[in-house]
Amino acid sequence: MDYNVADLSLAEFGRKELTLAEHEMPGLMEMRRRYADSQPLKGARVAGSLHMTIQTGVLIETLVALGADVRWATCNIFSTQDHAAAAIVVGNGTPEDPQGTPVFAWKGETLAEYWDEAEKVFDFTDAEGNRVGPNMLLDDGGDITLLVHKGVEFEKAGAVPGQDSTDNEEFKEVLRVLERSLANDPQRWTTIANGIKGVTEETTTGVLRLYDRFKEGSLLFPAINVNDSVTKSKFDNKYGCRHSLIDGLNRATDVMIGGKVAVVCGYGDVGKGCAESLRGQGARVIVTEIDPICALQAAMDGYEVKRLETVVDYADIFITTTGNFDIIRVEHFQRMKNQAIVGNIGHFDNEIDMAGLAKIPGIVKDEIKPQVHQWIFPGDDGAQGKKIIVLSEGRLLNLGNATGHPSFVMSNSFTNQVLAQIELFTKTDEYPVGVYVLPKHLDEEVARLHLDAIGVELTELSRAQADYLGVPVEGPYKADHYRY
Amino acid sequence: MDYNVADLSLAEFGRKELTLAEHEMPGLMEMRRRYADSQPLKGARVAGSLHMTIQTGVLIETLVALGADVRWATCNIFSTQDHAAAAIVVGNGTPEDPQGTPVFAWKGETLAEYWDEAEKVFDFTDAEGNRVGPNMLLDDGGDITLLVHKGVEFEKAGAVPGQDSTDNEEFKEVLRVLERSLANDPQRWTTIANGIKGVTEETTTGVLRLYDRFKEGSLLFPAINVNDSVTKSKFDNKYGCRHSLIDGLNRATDVMIGGKVAVVCGYGDVGKGCAESLRGQGARVIVTEIDPICALQAAMDGYEVKRLETVVDYADIFITTTGNFDIIRVEHFQRMKNQAIVGNIGHFDNEIDMAGLAKIPGIVKDEIKPQVHQWIFPGDDGAQGKKIIVLSEGRLLNLGNATGHPSFVMSNSFTNQVLAQIELFTKTDEYPVGVYVLPKHLDEEVARLHLDAIGVELTELSRAQADYLGVPVEGPYKADHYRY
Amino acid sequence: MDYNVADLSLAEFGRKELTLAEHEMPGLMEMRRRYADSQPLKGARVAGSLHMTIQTGVLIETLVALGADVRWATCNIFSTQDHAAAAIVVGNGTPEDPQGTPVFAWKGETLAEYWDEAEKVFDFTDAEGNRVGPNMLLDDGGDITLLVHKGVEFEKAGAVPGQDSTDNEEFKEVLRVLERSLANDPQRWTTIANGIKGVTEETTTGVLRLYDRFKEGSLLFPAINVNDSVTKSKFDNKYGCRHSLIDGLNRATDVMIGGKVAVVCGYGDVGKGCAESLRGQGARVIVTEIDPICALQAAMDGYEVKRLETVVDYADIFITTTGNFDIIRVEHFQRMKNQAIVGNIGHFDNEIDMAGLAKIPGIVKDEIKPQVHQWIFPGDDGAQGKKIIVLSEGRLLNLGNATGHPSFVMSNSFTNQVLAQIELFTKTDEYPVGVYVLPKHLDEEVARLHLDAIGVELTELSRAQADYLGVPVEGPYKADHYRY
Amino acid sequence: MDYNVADLSLAEFGRKELTLAEHEMPGLMEMRRRYADSQPLKGARVAGSLHMTIQTGVLIETLVALGADVRWATCNIFSTQDHAAAAIVVGNGTPEDPQGTPVFAWKGETLAEYWDEAEKVFDFTDAEGNRVGPNMLLDDGGDITLLVHKGVEFEKAGAVPGQDSTDNEEFKEVLRVLERSLANDPQRWTTIANGIKGVTEETTTGVLRLYDRFKEGSLLFPAINVNDSVTKSKFDNKYGCRHSLIDGLNRATDVMIGGKVAVVCGYGDVGKGCAESLRGQGARVIVTEIDPICALQAAMDGYEVKRLETVVDYADIFITTTGNFDIIRVEHFQRMKNQAIVGNIGHFDNEIDMAGLAKIPGIVKDEIKPQVHQWIFPGDDGAQGKKIIVLSEGRLLNLGNATGHPSFVMSNSFTNQVLAQIELFTKTDEYPVGVYVLPKHLDEEVARLHLDAIGVELTELSRAQADYLGVPVEGPYKADHYRY
Repeated sequence: MDYNVADLSLAEFGRKELTLAEHEMPGLMEMRRRYADSQPLKGARVAGSLHMTIQTGVLIETLVALGADVRWATCNIFSTQDHAAAAIVVGNGTPEDPQGTPVFAWKGETLAEYWDEAEKVFDFTDAEGNRVGPNMLLDDGGDITLLVHKGVEFEKAGAVPGQDSTDNEEFKEVLRVLERSLANDPQRWTTIANGIKGVTEETTTGVLRLYDRFKEGSLLFPAINVNDSVTKSKFDNKYGCRHSLIDGLNRATDVMIGGKVAVVCGYGDVGKGCAESLRGQGARVIVTEIDPICALQAAMDGYEVKRLETVVDYADIFITTTGNFDIIRVEHFQRMKNQAIVGNIGHFDNEIDMAGLAKIPGIVKDEIKPQVHQWIFPGDDGAQGKKIIVLSEGRLLNLGNATGHPSFVMSNSFTNQVLAQIELFTKTDEYPVGVYVLPKHLDEEVARLHLDAIGVELTELSRAQADYLGVPVEGPYKADHYRY
Repeated sequence: MDYNVADLSLAEFGRKELTLAEHEMPGLMEMRRRYADSQPLKGARVAGSLHMTIQTGVLIETLVALGADVRWATCNIFSTQDHAAAAIVVGNGTPEDPQGTPVFAWKGETLAEYWDEAEKVFDFTDAEGNRVGPNMLLDDGGDITLLVHKGVEFEKAGAVPGQDSTDNEEFKEVLRVLERSLANDPQRWTTIANGIKGVTEETTTGVLRLYDRFKEGSLLFPAINVNDSVTKSKFDNKYGCRHSLIDGLNRATDVMIGGKVAVVCGYGDVGKGCAESLRGQGARVIVTEIDPICALQAAMDGYEVKRLETVVDYADIFITTTGNFDIIRVEHFQRMKNQAIVGNIGHFDNEIDMAGLAKIPGIVKDEIKPQVHQWIFPGDDGAQGKKIIVLSEGRLLNLGNATGHPSFVMSNSFTNQVLAQIELFTKTDEYPVGVYVLPKHLDEEVARLHLDAIGVELTELSRAQADYLGVPVEGPYKADHYRY
Repeated sequence: MDYNVADLSLAEFGRKELTLAEHEMPGLMEMRRRYADSQPLKGARVAGSLHMTIQTGVLIETLVALGADVRWATCNIFSTQDHAAAAIVVGNGTPEDPQGTPVFAWKGETLAEYWDEAEKVFDFTDAEGNRVGPNMLLDDGGDITLLVHKGVEFEKAGAVPGQDSTDNEEFKEVLRVLERSLANDPQRWTTIANGIKGVTEETTTGVLRLYDRFKEGSLLFPAINVNDSVTKSKFDNKYGCRHSLIDGLNRATDVMIGGKVAVVCGYGDVGKGCAESLRGQGARVIVTEIDPICALQAAMDGYEVKRLETVVDYADIFITTTGNFDIIRVEHFQRMKNQAIVGNIGHFDNEIDMAGLAKIPGIVKDEIKPQVHQWIFPGDDGAQGKKIIVLSEGRLLNLGNATGHPSFVMSNSFTNQVLAQIELFTKTDEYPVGVYVLPKHLDEEVARLHLDAIGVELTELSRAQADYLGVPVEGPYKADHYRY
Repeated sequence: MDYNVADLSLAEFGRKELTLAEHEMPGLMEMRRRYADSQPLKGARVAGSLHMTIQTGVLIETLVALGADVRWATCNIFSTQDHAAAAIVVGNGTPEDPQGTPVFAWKGETLAEYWDEAEKVFDFTDAEGNRVGPNMLLDDGGDITLLVHKGVEFEKAGAVPGQDSTDNEEFKEVLRVLERSLANDPQRWTTIANGIKGVTEETTTGVLRLYDRFKEGSLLFPAINVNDSVTKSKFDNKYGCRHSLIDGLNRATDVMIGGKVAVVCGYGDVGKGCAESLRGQGARVIVTEIDPICALQAAMDGYEVKRLETVVDYADIFITTTGNFDIIRVEHFQRMKNQAIVGNIGHFDNEIDMAGLAKIPGIVKDEIKPQVHQWIFPGDDGAQGKKIIVLSEGRLLNLGNATGHPSFVMSNSFTNQVLAQIELFTKTDEYPVGVYVLPKHLDEEVARLHLDAIGVELTELSRAQADYLGVPVEGPYKADHYRY
């Protein structure tokens, strides 16, 4: 067993929280009920890379309940909840005799550990005891998809570029892992790729890369873009962040949000949720945007919309949500107030120029508590200058400083994941290489599975009304381009 | 001149309001500046059917400023602002010597008058003084598009069905007008249709019918679906209704909204705007929905979501926003409280079963003031029973009881209209018969034109950031399926 | 009959609206039911001065239903609703044979007319046909209270100062009316004052003056400060203005509030209501305040708090709510944007320096429609410069441009008025000269009377719980200093 | 040294957090600056009982900076932050040689420990090394005030009642401590009471008891009611709870608040803040109230107001805020949904009938994590039934499950505490036995000290404006009865 479960009570606590979370994840629980008999994922070997939280635990056990063999890593070095990992590993067994699912993740991995663990999800054993690769990927941010694609690329080229070919600390580790792999087996990733029926991808960032690969002709297997299901992008991104942003801020800093000036960089779904929650706590929110339509939306929603440069001197809290990079830069840090708080809830840590921050001459990084650092600027005459508080080292603050999105919203996202896994695994012929979204009737189904739990009564169309609108009584009700 | 401008002061008042509105419509004013020289609509004969308000006046004069010859009707018997109509007719002239644009609309037309006036927008005179049809349509709800299509259909059939072939009071009038037309000229509509380069359509309802026609192969000319520009559907529908719903309620009833229970039927863009404005006034909002995704959104936004039947007994205000029909029915009216208020802000008046209401035995319709009626139910022993207040006879209450959407939001919608007219008129070859949306860069351009006026500063992508995202620095920034 | 009721339909419309309003004023209707038999105001001659709206009509007829003889003027030259006035005059009679209550008010009086009419409410006729004064005053802003006090003061002095002793246009009219009165009867006001049992006063402004008079020893009769009943100040001021501010803005300008920058001067109860409603429409609200506690509240509620000078250049809408004077001055007007909108919802028109505005050289005042003017500044080279839109000439915009507060909230205020009239009239001995607030149990009673109408279920204290709190089961529940 | 500081890192972490908190507590820091020289609390021996958090740490060190000798206990067995306690004990010293302030508190005391520690704050040593009592009390909830008063009462009676004279578990401990004390020194509390110049009390609950004592003539020394300073009751109670309620809910349960039905029992300042924050997260909030005025406010703010019985079956979250007892009872628990969450943010744990809950036959209390328990009801046939999640065993959830109010809002409350301590200690003659609130100019001063930190610009009255209002230019600006 790869996961070190030294502490029985950790796993026990995790199992208790899994039970509580199941109640909040009606979509996944319905999947288990609905497919208990038919076992649509029987034969699937699912390699997963997604924040190893309690909610993900319910997802993993749902995949298993549908017949899948699963191995799991996380997609962020800080986001693992150790009690969740322990509980999944132990399953219904004990630490000595676990009967759960292998998990390769702990909170606070190094980058090197992260990529070493990521590689391990590709090591399945089939019924005959042979070492085989996965036939399905479930990805969040595209890291394991990247590993396969880069592996195949370098195997084709016959060599892995040297680690000094890149400045990117993380990509250096990818190169290291692949170099080791090629040394052991120069066709390993090619073989693995050939066996993969498809990947289901969770994030904006990961999806963007899939479309790019498809456009340039390098995509190796079909992909379902789960991110753009309405019940994912409009729920997880928006309502999930509405919940978890302030949760992360509170746990990290205990600073009063009311009365503060908070800058939200980006007004996509994530930014919309963040702005709403900050306002709900009495902050004055200022939005930055590059897209004129989103900027106009922010203004219509009553937010001030300015360039970061205009407001950086006096704002108290800065949150990046863009999916882009280099949003908060050294020039901005230099101008911030003492005890300004800076955090990222987009995907990658490069939204904030952490590398640039660390290079400011004389700056000192001081840990207040795990995932909360004050960067102490040099003051005059050798004194300490202002302090800037950075959360989760620029990585996802809602996962690093809190527990990520709550179960209910993740139940929506993950039910999409399960449906997507079933689609790709069972209807392989219908999905040639390409990037797909789930059909709208499945998207509506996901929503429908979550209504009872919160007391929603749905109105039913009469036949005449459905005919008037030109839609089936049972849906789908909207054209594909409908924006919700 | 068809429009009776008896009252100079009416036109003068209208011209003054046009000037004020121009300041609030920066998109349209930029169109005038940008195209002053190139005159892209020179040669266009635009037949328009759209609520004849001050904002529409600014649109009309923009089309004229771009070179078009224009004739205008309204698309709703109650929505005309007479001072707007008068001002457009007079233009820069006087009532005796008007130099404006022909308008065929007044507040409070009968259905017969409405369709008689609608027909008049097809009567252009060319440079040589010949009677010719329009070569462009600009439509809201599809009434003049219907007239052409039905005209062609009946001309092909050689006859118009008798008026008793339909129960629909409005369609009877359509048949009457077309019968008269065929009697005069059995090929008139066919000739007109052949000359039309395209139609630009404003509403969900109208667009639905265009797609239906295209699907069944009966669409006669290309159409641009302006409704689904983001800067239309997400602004006009949502933020426009947020403004005009409570304006209509207030002018009609003066009833305190705070503390009341308000039911919003439908949680599309219109419903979202309505719910927000009612909550902003302190009402407790309950939503009804048939679409599980929209229902879940409403719940996540903190609204109670119930069937109408569950809450009809105690709610104070009922607003329909669905685009569907038969939403509020006699069975609901029967159960409402005394002095419940019922209004529609969807498109057609059949969202509320006004016909059914009128047929309740013993019911009396009593006008409180124009567009506000109390329907007095029969009580016990011949006494008066409860009263239900119905706004605008079930038609669009924001137009019938207030002045419609405000200029700023209409500037977004109408700038889309102008751009769509230019597209279809100048790039005829690029648009074979079909239904199109405007390309995203034009949508973004519309938004961009409205930012300065409200003090929004837009952030600019660096080249590196744009490359990272894989978008041009100058946009468009989002994939077509992005939902905003 | 003093009121010119030329138009039967005006009175009929008014009677219809009175019926609708009665449904929204459960507190007043309960007063009628509760006191129908005991007639506690039998013998009361109530001189009233309060905005002559439909809601005031329900108040007047409630006073009459309780036995009072009533004469009424308005307290603002623009706030009269003519159909309300007509309906009250006609009562259940006809214009030819009215059986209602004398009203001396119409929309758009001159200042001279205003004070002439105000004087008329003091002219009662007793059962024997003798001319007598009122024995009760009901005041809003203190104008009729002022008339009595100044009358007595000048009668004591033996002369009225000349009109050129003041720069205040309004006070010149007071002097004119009193001069005429002293010429006719040099003891009239002294006699009237001796007969008055007390005054009930509605507004912050009027109350302030009563306390001042009491402090300086010049108050002539007891007063009940109705304004500081919780069910007045916290409801009428806050929730009433939340409703009527945007109603006034919309009817006056039709300008989109969403996305605009709106400055609210003052964050008392009125300012709180205004800020909430503007935000509810999507405006970005900036507050100005002089009181650090209210300023901190505004900041905690998420509003930007700045000096007017800091934001006057770029704000779109300016609303004064202070009860103070000289809030928006010429120096501010000079710096505003073109088409900035300026309105007052405090009490007196001197919150905005209208006199100063009018004196700007070259400025032109142009009426757009009644109560809406654009002040056109001189531009360069004789051209027109920017326009500033001023509502209701600086007077109460919610009354001048809309219909004032809605019935439901006024039912709270007016039920306090009725209870206060009963207190002073029936318990004369308990109220020596002084300024009083209503006891808390009456305040709670007013609230209680309004709960059923909006579906509120009140929890009841158990005896043990009441004992634990040390309050009676039936209330009052809070200490006098409790702030709600 | 009484406090066990085994862990240096705990104190170091606490000192770091104290530094961060100082930045968020501008009022307290200004007190230190302003009174650094004059040392107004020199000679004061302050016995304090107030949640031993980081914020309280800044308060304690401010009192010390003003010259006081201080000893501290907590007022709630769960609310102590151990790192805060450690840091205050250590002060600027080391665990081996601490130079700080004695603190007698740790997270998770038993009731017996709690009262034993409370007694220790009365043990000062004077300059000569004699054991003396405090001369000032600073209290939150009245526990140490109770100890003195009961001590004196029993000393006068000559005996302490037996512990079986009460059912109240907590009061049994009080009796035990006092019995021991009387055995040692039968006049100890009488002597202490004679030396006390006064108490400053923080909470609604504690204040209520002070007024009761004063009314019945048993109050032993003057008291300042800090709770009713506007800058306390309207800020700490409302905005503090707005922040800390959802923080507590999130840390305890990670349950999504959006879309849930949350019942807030009580709509005083605490309830108002709670309702706002729950709505800000997308919950649907239902309020219960006994006071018709507060109930009407809740309705006007758009909340549903019902009796608990009406909604207990379907609500997801229950929060008590009343200051009363027996709000959520066994009959309610019996009807709640599975996994309903129950918490208290009022003062005492008796708002929820925890004792009754524990007595339900067959019920099992299971700890999920510290301060979070699921109470598992017996199901059919011996199976587990529904689970109800109770936070902090019914005590203050924002302290037990989160870190209490944030520093900024506590800076307001605690600056009032400091000013009140100075008042009572330095102006002893001006305060005969009684209960006082701070004068308004001090209240305004507290607010003023917090404006700069959040960028608020205060407008200044001109002399003419101040005269017009009849207030000093520098304040106070409002009458005492003003409600804010």
